[in-house]
Amino acid sequence: MKYPKPFESLIESLRKLPGVGAKTAERYAFHMLDWKEQQIQGFIEAIDQTYHQLRDCKVCGNLTVEEVCHICADVHRDHTIICVVTNVKDIIAIEKTNEFHGVYHVLKGEISASKGKLPDDIRLKELVQRIDDSTQEVIIATNPTVDGETTALYLIKLLEHKQPIISRLAHGLPMGGYLDYADELTLIKAMEGRKKVKGLL
Amino acid sequence: MKYPKPFESLIESLRKLPGVGAKTAERYAFHMLDWKEQQIQGFIEAIDQTYHQLRDCKVCGNLTVEEVCHICADVHRDHTIICVVTNVKDIIAIEKTNEFHGVYHVLKGEISASKGKLPDDIRLKELVQRIDDSTQEVIIATNPTVDGETTALYLIKLLEHKQPIISRLAHGLPMGGYLDYADELTLIKAMEGRKKVKGLL
Repeated sequence: MKYPKPFESLIESLRKLPGVGAKTAERYAFHMLDWKEQQIQGFIEAIDQTYHQLRDCKVCGNLTVEEVCHICADVHRDHTIICVVTNVKDIIAIEKTNEFHGVYHVLKGEISASKGKLPDDIRLKELVQRIDDSTQEVIIATNPTVDGETTALYLIKLLEHKQPIISRLAHGLPMGGYLDYADELTLIKAMEGRKKVKGLL
Repeated sequence: MKYPKPFESLIESLRKLPGVGAKTAERYAFHMLDWKEQQIQGFIEAIDQTYHQLRDCKVCGNLTVEEVCHICADVHRDHTIICVVTNVKDIIAIEKTNEFHGVYHVLKGEISASKGKLPDDIRLKELVQRIDDSTQEVIIATNPTVDGETTALYLIKLLEHKQPIISRLAHGLPMGGYLDYADELTLIKAMEGRKKVKGLL
């Protein structure tokens, strides 16, 4: 026995967090020893409620405590434009821009040869079912990675004969970076996607 | 609102762990969504029990669920040798060597000018009270850092007129390292602490 049993269990549990090894888990556990009763109770409640109250929005797959998430329930948003993302985190990232006023569809994963994820393992069927005559545009916002591209191409093929416009996020130079720091593929995409500017100003 | 409330609270709680920022806390929280009921319950119980059952050993200050820790309660250990360490973690480090069979005293901190920690803020009084006629040796095993050295020097002064032998851990080259990687101070300490070897083999 190293530490008393409850403390060992705490370290064991913390080790299950992603990227947390024995040393870090130990550090976290010792830190938690100094927490106040209120903090501990708050933590326990948050874990418990997250586990028992949270569910997937039955329309888009976003995290929610209601049956339908606050975005899908918002009548002021444009429900004719659906932005397809890989994970719930991506919704948060796009929402932060305050520029998109449509709704989302969370795939909950990507088609991946390396991880053995097939099209049936992600929420593609739900997306196809959702698209109806009122849908005007489907924006594919998967990650610019191998798996993200695979998923995007599969989606384009899948929605080929559907009525709405299918679009993808632009690829190119990230803002605030330096050109000589950009990788080749990004530069190729930026070159391919170049826009005419003559007479624009 | 970014995420549903319970999930936000979970992220907030996880952010209180040392070195965990917003992104990491979010990653941990999403990871926990995939945990099974059993894992979640185990985690909650571990936190709860750690908080409500764990206490300081009333002899040495080690973590324990009993009144006296398993080391102090062990009659096979040599209770006449007390090894003074900064934190509970240090006990684990020394115990791993399987070489020390005495008992410990945890200071729960170091005297520190930068952190404003005074001698009264750490468990020095308890140590002095513990030392009696049966005590044969007090080994000072504080960290080889500025605060650790300060604490060690204070301790040496404090125990000056006590009967037992006062000793310190040796400083020198760490095993398995290369000499040219050692810092100057370590080399100086290694040189100072050199031992005669002639005729030893």
